[in-house]
Amino acid sequence: MSIRVAIIGAGPSGMAMLRAFQSAHQKGAEVPEFVCFEKQSDWGGIWNYTWRTGLDQYGEPVHGSMYRYLWSNGPKECLEFSDYTFEEHFGQPIPSYPPRAVLHDYIMGRVEKAGLRAHVRFNSPVRWVDYSEETGKFTLTVKDNVKDALYSEVFDYVVVASGHFSTPNVPHFPGIEMFPGRVMHAHDFRAADEFVGKDLLIVGSSYSAEDIASQCYKYGAKSITFSYRTRRSNFKWPSCFTEKPLLEKLDGRVAHFIDGSTAEVDAVILCTGYLHHYPFLPDDMRLKSANRMNPPDLYKGVVWENNHKLFYLGMQDQYYTFNMFDAQAWYVRDIILGRIALPADETIAADIARWLEKEGTIETAFDAIDFQTDYMKELIPATDYPMFDLDAVAALFKVWEHDKERDIMGYRDNSYTSIMTGNMAPPHHTKWLEALDDSFEAFINPAAVAAE
Amino acid sequence: MSIRVAIIGAGPSGMAMLRAFQSAHQKGAEVPEFVCFEKQSDWGGIWNYTWRTGLDQYGEPVHGSMYRYLWSNGPKECLEFSDYTFEEHFGQPIPSYPPRAVLHDYIMGRVEKAGLRAHVRFNSPVRWVDYSEETGKFTLTVKDNVKDALYSEVFDYVVVASGHFSTPNVPHFPGIEMFPGRVMHAHDFRAADEFVGKDLLIVGSSYSAEDIASQCYKYGAKSITFSYRTRRSNFKWPSCFTEKPLLEKLDGRVAHFIDGSTAEVDAVILCTGYLHHYPFLPDDMRLKSANRMNPPDLYKGVVWENNHKLFYLGMQDQYYTFNMFDAQAWYVRDIILGRIALPADETIAADIARWLEKEGTIETAFDAIDFQTDYMKELIPATDYPMFDLDAVAALFKVWEHDKERDIMGYRDNSYTSIMTGNMAPPHHTKWLEALDDSFEAFINPAAVAAE
Ligand SMILES: Cc1cc2nc3c(=O)[nH]c(=O)nc-3n(C[C@H](O)[C@H](O)[C@H](O)COP(=O)(O)OP(=O)(O)OC[C@H]3O[C@@H](n4cnc5c(N)ncnc54)[C@H](O)[C@@H]3O)c2cc1C
Ligand SMILES: Cc1cc2nc3c(=O)[nH]c(=O)nc-3n(C[C@H](O)[C@H](O)[C@H](O)COP(=O)(O)OP(=O)(O)OC[C@H]3O[C@@H](n4cnc5c(N)ncnc54)[C@H](O)[C@@H]3O)c2cc1C
Ligand SMILES: NC(=O)c1ccc[n+]([C@@H]2O[C@H](COP(=O)([O-])OP(=O)(O)OC[C@H]3O[C@@H](n4cnc5c(N)ncnc54)[C@H](OP(=O)(O)O)[C@@H]3O)[C@@H](O)[C@H]2O)c1
Ligand SMILES: NC(=O)c1ccc[n+]([C@@H]2O[C@H](COP(=O)([O-])OP(=O)(O)OC[C@H]3O[C@@H](n4cnc5c(N)ncnc54)[C@H](OP(=O)(O)O)[C@@H]3O)[C@@H](O)[C@H]2O)c1
Repeated sequence: MSIRVAIIGAGPSGMAMLRAFQSAHQKGAEVPEFVCFEKQSDWGGIWNYTWRTGLDQYGEPVHGSMYRYLWSNGPKECLEFSDYTFEEHFGQPIPSYPPRAVLHDYIMGRVEKAGLRAHVRFNSPVRWVDYSEETGKFTLTVKDNVKDALYSEVFDYVVVASGHFSTPNVPHFPGIEMFPGRVMHAHDFRAADEFVGKDLLIVGSSYSAEDIASQCYKYGAKSITFSYRTRRSNFKWPSCFTEKPLLEKLDGRVAHFIDGSTAEVDAVILCTGYLHHYPFLPDDMRLKSANRMNPPDLYKGVVWENNHKLFYLGMQDQYYTFNMFDAQAWYVRDIILGRIALPADETIAADIARWLEKEGTIETAFDAIDFQTDYMKELIPATDYPMFDLDAVAALFKVWEHDKERDIMGYRDNSYTSIMTGNMAPPHHTKWLEALDDSFEAFINPAAVAAE
Repeated sequence: MSIRVAIIGAGPSGMAMLRAFQSAHQKGAEVPEFVCFEKQSDWGGIWNYTWRTGLDQYGEPVHGSMYRYLWSNGPKECLEFSDYTFEEHFGQPIPSYPPRAVLHDYIMGRVEKAGLRAHVRFNSPVRWVDYSEETGKFTLTVKDNVKDALYSEVFDYVVVASGHFSTPNVPHFPGIEMFPGRVMHAHDFRAADEFVGKDLLIVGSSYSAEDIASQCYKYGAKSITFSYRTRRSNFKWPSCFTEKPLLEKLDGRVAHFIDGSTAEVDAVILCTGYLHHYPFLPDDMRLKSANRMNPPDLYKGVVWENNHKLFYLGMQDQYYTFNMFDAQAWYVRDIILGRIALPADETIAADIARWLEKEGTIETAFDAIDFQTDYMKELIPATDYPMFDLDAVAALFKVWEHDKERDIMGYRDNSYTSIMTGNMAPPHHTKWLEALDDSFEAFINPAAVAAE
């Protein structure tokens, strides 16, 4: 029997894996059979917007954490594929901060054109993965949701690309069970409309907190009270925003913070991050990690230390996204193809320890950007993934950080030069704060939308 | 090794199973070792209120479907345990329609007093059940959520008591993905407060629709529009209620119904029922059923036709609840204890066919009540579960139906006579529509609450 590779998840990471094999095949290499299992009815991962929350129509946890009106929170120039540029996809340069639908279109474009859809089995959650020491093979148990039936298949390699921003981390705060209004986690946030005119409490101080607060403000919330655990943000928020330390308890509508101050609020949105959650993996193959730059037990961030036929993609906390998933997928592909030979176990352990130590020295956002840039520099040259100017990307990430500090509500109006094509992005036709229509058409073809 | 029984779930059904074994043991019988796995951190099933929705702190689907301000929707006299009366538990007669906390206290009382807690492993979702034809035994794979580790154990019998009102059935309606307000399923409903002053669309016409609408009205919603698929209700709703046929689509805030009429609404609550969902069972042991009086493939509603060591409790649509779970648990216990001998396979098949045919003759609610009463009459005499006047219960269910038809907002103010004790329930101190505090104390000891 030929070699078989199972890919779990058809989000940006799983699609990068598909593309990596197809790219080698196109260049004449013999590639193994690869099958991608995707629990949703379409590919695109969390970029595939769903109105559902909680459990889906088959009783599976809803994967989607994205919401209407979501725009890229980083410049698209930092995540551009080096083998498929925005210009190639759209036939023209586009602004630097596109809404979800536009980025979704871009990532789908590459795999659709490459004819990779046939490799994906949709509506197919992987329920269980077994590894047999005896045969050296994996058995995957998969639910066919459409047929409402389970089946099993055997594979030589498994690539876990199931994402780690879909299982909400939901802390308890005293009194939350009696709060007389909506209590939700960012994972279930679908649109700001529900919060027009409301006083909101947003717990957390990272990206979700920032962006959900900005959205609610943009669409008409009355006030935002942030509650941070470790550090307050360094942004210049509009005057209806307040930053408070950690929430101590809720008493009716009144939120009490640990500094003794209070605020009366209508709804609580917990932007408290996500859990790494792999219910389909046995303990000895299961990554246990917080959301961090360098998840443990992974060689080069992708190879499972205790079983070199098991890989994880995209499990890092992310500055780099799409092109990092590519770099990882190409690397994993080349291990499977035998182009990259894994070193001895001690060397692997030492390399893992080296990165762990390096992670320990991260203090600032800039350190984290440099850390991930160094990681990219180690992965890309090992494969034929087209190299690009990583220092320029790192510099752009730092510019982006400054832009946000300067103007948190206006940073998405900036334009940058593509590192891949050298072309400058045009400005968007409308300031982000006034751009209430986040559709593909309104962004790409506003004249047609206006004419309607 | 001694005989081992695994019970999956410590809700009312699982607790009935625990009690059944303990009751036999108390009377001197030798009983097998029984272990109950419960995924929540406490027992009580969906009566164990949780503020959480979607996924819990461990990433498992939240089981709870109950909400604040929920009161029994049937007379407590219909669900009373015949071996543990309300009077025995509370030391006095109590009103006929208690709030959730009071019923919760009652069902917990019996098992707490019987010292059964030690038989339950909490925070322990069963992930997988395997049956070996070779050994004739089951292997359960369980997640210990606290230790974040999986383990397996072998059992001779498995009793599935995981409930079937926790995995929402969520249909799609065109335009729902763009609805500019909250969209939710009854499973995620936690309190009516959020809907004060709002125009609500409630899809469905069964118990959840009825009760969530009544709650929202009671706590101040502006209007309720029901949308039914099969039949409108026959209740006299207050004037701010409207009944419409099936929802066709949503266009912004405007709901369009199949009769061409429309309504503008602020939120959509899908009271569209639940799915039977057993992700821990292989196909050949998995019940596939709609919410119906007589789920298929179960002998006497509990024994899995193709494996007589596998049982299901409480999987029927329910008029009878707690005392039916008891009748079932006693029956299952007596099969395991060898007190009830299962007949030949043909006799079992014929009996299943007979009940299926009987189910087919159900046309009205009264027929369904009689059907389930007949079922009770077949189960109880087969064991030592204390028999009670089932015709009186059936008659009371019919009175209850009439009471609801007469006054849907006032039926919970009625009082009935206990079938077990013959004592009349006292009236509640406050009319249901005015009883805004649903706490245990307010119901049982209002004087103390008032004095506070
Ligand atoms: C709210 C939010 C906004 C974001 N915005 C941006 C942004 O603006 N720019 C950016 O670059 N990044 C953004 N990200 C980061 C995002 O994580 C990445 O862009 C990217 O989606 C990660 O890709 P992935 O394939 O690793 O995971 P995912 O996109 O999560 O895809 C994983 C896939 O695996 C499938 N899956 C899961 N479990 C199973 C199973 N058991 N069986 C089969 N299939 C399974 C899922 O259905 C899904 O399709 C955002 C993240 C969040 C949460
Ligand atoms: C909103 C609502 C209101 C209701 N109100 C009433 C009422 O007023 N009166 C009435 O008589 N009935 C009412 N019912 C009916 C209710 O179904 C029964 O009262 C009763 O709770 C059913 O008991 P059960 O044990 O079968 O299921 P549940 O109460 O659902 O308990 C099942 C248990 O199994 C556990 N479990 C599930 N999966 C796993 C797993 N994989 N591993 C381990 N444990 C697991 C769950 O955590 C849970 O504790 C109501 C139902 C709903 C949905
Ligand atoms: N395109 C967009 O606009 C957009 C929008 C949203 C999210 N995203 C992406 O989504 C991903 C996830 O971001 P995220 O913000 O959800 O997660 P995150 O970056 O992991 O941040 C988690 C936040 O929750 C806080 N937190 C965790 N537990 C807490 C507790 N018990 N009490 C109080 N606070 C607690 C953390 O505080 P501490 O600092 O104290 O740990 C931190 O602020 C990122 O990749 C981000 O880029 C993008
Ligand atoms: N104590 C309380 O007050 C209380 C409150 C709520 C619930 N409960 C209990 O909870 C249990 C479940 O009740 P439930 O009402 O949630 O479920 P249910 O009785 O199974 O009813 C499901 C409802 O959803 C409708 N439906 C299903 N699919 C639909 C679709 N695609 N489009 C439109 N309508 C659709 C059904 O309509 P059709 O008739 O057309 O099939 C039906 O009206 C019951 O045991 C009940 O007693 C109790």
